[in-house]
Amino acid sequence: MRAATSPEAAQSRIGTLETPCLIIDAARMDRNIARLRDRLAPMGVPLRPHLKTAKSIEVAVRAMSSPQGPATVSTLKEAAFFAAAGVRDIIYAVGITPCKLAKVIELRQNGVDLAVILDTVEQAEAVALASRTSGEVIPALIEIDCDGHRSGVPPQDKDRLLSIGRAITQGGELRGVMTHAGGSYAARGATALRQAAETERRSVVDAANILRQAGLPCPVVSVGSTPTAHYATDLSGVTEVRAGVFVFFDLVMAGIGICEIDDIAMSVLATVIGHQREKGWILIDAGWMAMSQDRGTSKQQIDQGYGLVCDSAGTPFQDLILADANQEHGILKVRPGSNAALPELAIGDRVRILPNHACATGAQHRSYHIVHGTSDIVTNEWVRFTGW
Amino acid sequence: MRAATSPEAAQSRIGTLETPCLIIDAARMDRNIARLRDRLAPMGVPLRPHLKTAKSIEVAVRAMSSPQGPATVSTLKEAAFFAAAGVRDIIYAVGITPCKLAKVIELRQNGVDLAVILDTVEQAEAVALASRTSGEVIPALIEIDCDGHRSGVPPQDKDRLLSIGRAITQGGELRGVMTHAGGSYAARGATALRQAAETERRSVVDAANILRQAGLPCPVVSVGSTPTAHYATDLSGVTEVRAGVFVFFDLVMAGIGICEIDDIAMSVLATVIGHQREKGWILIDAGWMAMSQDRGTSKQQIDQGYGLVCDSAGTPFQDLILADANQEHGILKVRPGSNAALPELAIGDRVRILPNHACATGAQHRSYHIVHGTSDIVTNEWVRFTGW
Repeated sequence: MRAATSPEAAQSRIGTLETPCLIIDAARMDRNIARLRDRLAPMGVPLRPHLKTAKSIEVAVRAMSSPQGPATVSTLKEAAFFAAAGVRDIIYAVGITPCKLAKVIELRQNGVDLAVILDTVEQAEAVALASRTSGEVIPALIEIDCDGHRSGVPPQDKDRLLSIGRAITQGGELRGVMTHAGGSYAARGATALRQAAETERRSVVDAANILRQAGLPCPVVSVGSTPTAHYATDLSGVTEVRAGVFVFFDLVMAGIGICEIDDIAMSVLATVIGHQREKGWILIDAGWMAMSQDRGTSKQQIDQGYGLVCDSAGTPFQDLILADANQEHGILKVRPGSNAALPELAIGDRVRILPNHACATGAQHRSYHIVHGTSDIVTNEWVRFTGW
Repeated sequence: MRAATSPEAAQSRIGTLETPCLIIDAARMDRNIARLRDRLAPMGVPLRPHLKTAKSIEVAVRAMSSPQGPATVSTLKEAAFFAAAGVRDIIYAVGITPCKLAKVIELRQNGVDLAVILDTVEQAEAVALASRTSGEVIPALIEIDCDGHRSGVPPQDKDRLLSIGRAITQGGELRGVMTHAGGSYAARGATALRQAAETERRSVVDAANILRQAGLPCPVVSVGSTPTAHYATDLSGVTEVRAGVFVFFDLVMAGIGICEIDDIAMSVLATVIGHQREKGWILIDAGWMAMSQDRGTSKQQIDQGYGLVCDSAGTPFQDLILADANQEHGILKVRPGSNAALPELAIGDRVRILPNHACATGAQHRSYHIVHGTSDIVTNEWVRFTGW
């Protein structure tokens, strides 16, 4: 593992960082990780964190149960990066294409147990063929469509499940089944969230039973989304839970009711660069390049614009949002309908913006500046990577 | 300047690139650059291209009138990068903050004529103070608000203009006035676009006259946006035009009527990873991480979703759009209301997605893969940078 601390960063304070930049409150992050781990432990189901959110080895080692994993990734670049950093048990959780199998084989031959996912016979045949040709047996999980939101085999489609399962075993390894309850992001209220978790669980348990009854192996039964991971009350038959954004949380998760605003560990530090006083606008040097264009709260009960504005210690101003964003300009306004006063912020003052979507905002930055609670001392700078 | 060609890239073809990745059709790019240059030449007004779109020295040298500039940037990192590559005449076109002046001075002392912009007396006083303290006279342009869309001084606010101008000259250099007709993105039709260009021109010409009549210098009168640059018919009194996205164009510009679909030089190459046939969906390995979450066409007459889908040679399929996007998954669908048939695309087939917004999509990638017209040969890979 690489050294996490740069000497300059170890000396700095929030007030001296160049803006815009990305801040992580490690106290909140550690609390969020402990919360999900403590929640799953009594159910006896291990966590396989999704590292696509953080793309940082320092965050990964805190989220994983061991430095070797298990872990989930969304790109083969993530797989290669984390494998090079010592992670040994990885699922690449986007449907595999034949052209990516050479890279999968290369990573496996370097000692990482990398599994792929798929939902068609064509992909299964490609995995089996590549396994036979290379002599490297590639493990594959069948993706199940638990809620119709994206990819996967409907769990009741027995013929397709068995055809895929049998095709994998013609050279590859049928590792199990997996699903992602992406539809849970639209669930509102505890009852709906518990139902989404149960639907997710049932989909893979049913699919696993179909495979096993046909004599096919299915050791892994994997579920995962941050909302369902926090609301599941019964994980019978499930062997692992995947989740990603729980590490940092964000405004979308707060809007669904999975966390509170003061659990959100990620913020973008910005500097005031101007005013349009007669319009009630404050301009800052963080636009969509620093925040992303994720507007995930736009369909929630509280639309947070491009983010919720806090002071430099991380305390939200009342109803102040990043209402509009150009590439490197942000416009702060009081939320429509609010009677809150626009805070007095002078040119050069600093604010911190909580993001709608931690995965998207994180991706706009090359590093995390680490703080702890309300302290203004920046103890570390952790590198994060991007691209494919 | 760095070498532009990597030996591996020089050997590759579109079919062998790892996906998702970013493609630039250099034939279209060169045509777009020539078009704007040819348009402005008879009016005698030089182009100061905005390098925030491309963030690549290879694109910059093609867009600029000389390897030394002039150029516009949106961050000090861009200024430092292009200065290191030999550009000598740069405007940093986001309102300056006092904490960034040390970096501005450092860059100027290294030989680049870097100018800043501002719209308050506080910023002007900070520029003057830093100039006096450092001995490095910082040039500043006063930002004018021509259409109310963002920052700047209203051109009729004579008192504020003169106060700012006088404050700059207490140590700094009053270089001139500048504006950006961001409101022109909402204009529709040639008449409205010509009017936006004329309003933009008038705003800075009027402001320059106010300054000059008070005995203040105003050598530079700078306008700029890609829509107005392509529709201005009279640039009397203007000394330079800035524009950025004209180099690549995108679906938003096509929707406004500034370019045709087949002028768009940027696309994201992706691979088919699955189907949900009963829903009419094709899944690909490019989601919002590869495209950005820019939905700039959502309020235009034709909503292109997250992008318009072409075959691997760059020819659009009829009415096929990237209708939905998760982090690394994209869902292709026929546009609502269209009778077009879903094309037959097998797992492993490649498509190219034209972006809504070239600045936003480009920012998600670390390099450009260069092709020429319908040839599938990738002649170069050009590095692009990100961050602050």
